[in-house]
Amino acid sequence: MHWLEIETDNCSIQRALSVIGEKWTILILREAFNGVRRFDQIRGHIGMSDSLLADRLRKLVAAGVLDAVPYQDPGRRRRNEYRLTEKGLDLYPVMIALMRWGDRYYADPEGPALIVAHAGCDEPVEAVVECERGHRLASAAEGRADPGPGARARTPAGAGTADGHSP
Amino acid sequence: MHWLEIETDNCSIQRALSVIGEKWTILILREAFNGVRRFDQIRGHIGMSDSLLADRLRKLVAAGVLDAVPYQDPGRRRRNEYRLTEKGLDLYPVMIALMRWGDRYYADPEGPALIVAHAGCDEPVEAVVECERGHRLASAAEGRADPGPGARARTPAGAGTADGHSP
Repeated sequence: MHWLEIETDNCSIQRALSVIGEKWTILILREAFNGVRRFDQIRGHIGMSDSLLADRLRKLVAAGVLDAVPYQDPGRRRRNEYRLTEKGLDLYPVMIALMRWGDRYYADPEGPALIVAHAGCDEPVEAVVECERGHRLASAAEGRADPGPGARARTPAGAGTADGHSP
Repeated sequence: MHWLEIETDNCSIQRALSVIGEKWTILILREAFNGVRRFDQIRGHIGMSDSLLADRLRKLVAAGVLDAVPYQDPGRRRRNEYRLTEKGLDLYPVMIALMRWGDRYYADPEGPALIVAHAGCDEPVEAVVECERGHRLASAAEGRADPGPGARARTPAGAGTADGHSP
């Protein structure tokens, strides 16, 4: 079965994007990975509106990517801070891959604003594609995509229509 | 300088997202990585409108992520197909990272729709974070983020405003 003959409804990329496929969401996750967990701090640093941030946080908590954990500063009311769950932490390769691609093609002449390094040896990190035997793929040309156990043939009715396949 | 004190305008993730931070765009790239390069095929497989697809393709070509390459089927007019440039191919770790996260958390019970394997040994691939010395980071906890050469201190005027920092 060629990729074009496979139904895209259960494509893993599509399903991942239904949770994190939006700029503001990724920027919120960037803050979380950098230890910025409080509403006002996230809002101020990203520069987004209260309502948009509240909506995106709610969705990320509902999806199990962030946990809302109560905290209370002296003399203030109880609020939540937002911490990455294990599911959220598993997005680390996505974040590093995005950052490094941006570093490569869009950094200012003096270099990127942030360097992520291995804490053990201080060397900068990269997101790489490796197989389970540890071979690193230098490019997509060294990979092969085959239908998986969840592959379903597209129904003729679905072919060429402009609806029913929204991400 | 703490991350919160750093200006986000030149954040590499933010700049990457200004090019590929949109669901349809990533789905078009998914098609390209799977060898689907022609307008009608992309449109039919993703299920998106002509105008949206034309707009996203134009932007990806302008950004140097896709090349528009003319082709002509017998008896038809000349059209373009869209091929990943080197810059586009460099998004492979982003795509694999998204796919594998989706595989892990959103696959159907029977498994994912697509398996990407190392062509050399048939083992499935994963996107991993490694440092330049080859140490693999098991989690974000093993990484450290420091201001890079392009880091700029946020101006007090920028702090807390809801504009001027749009991605």
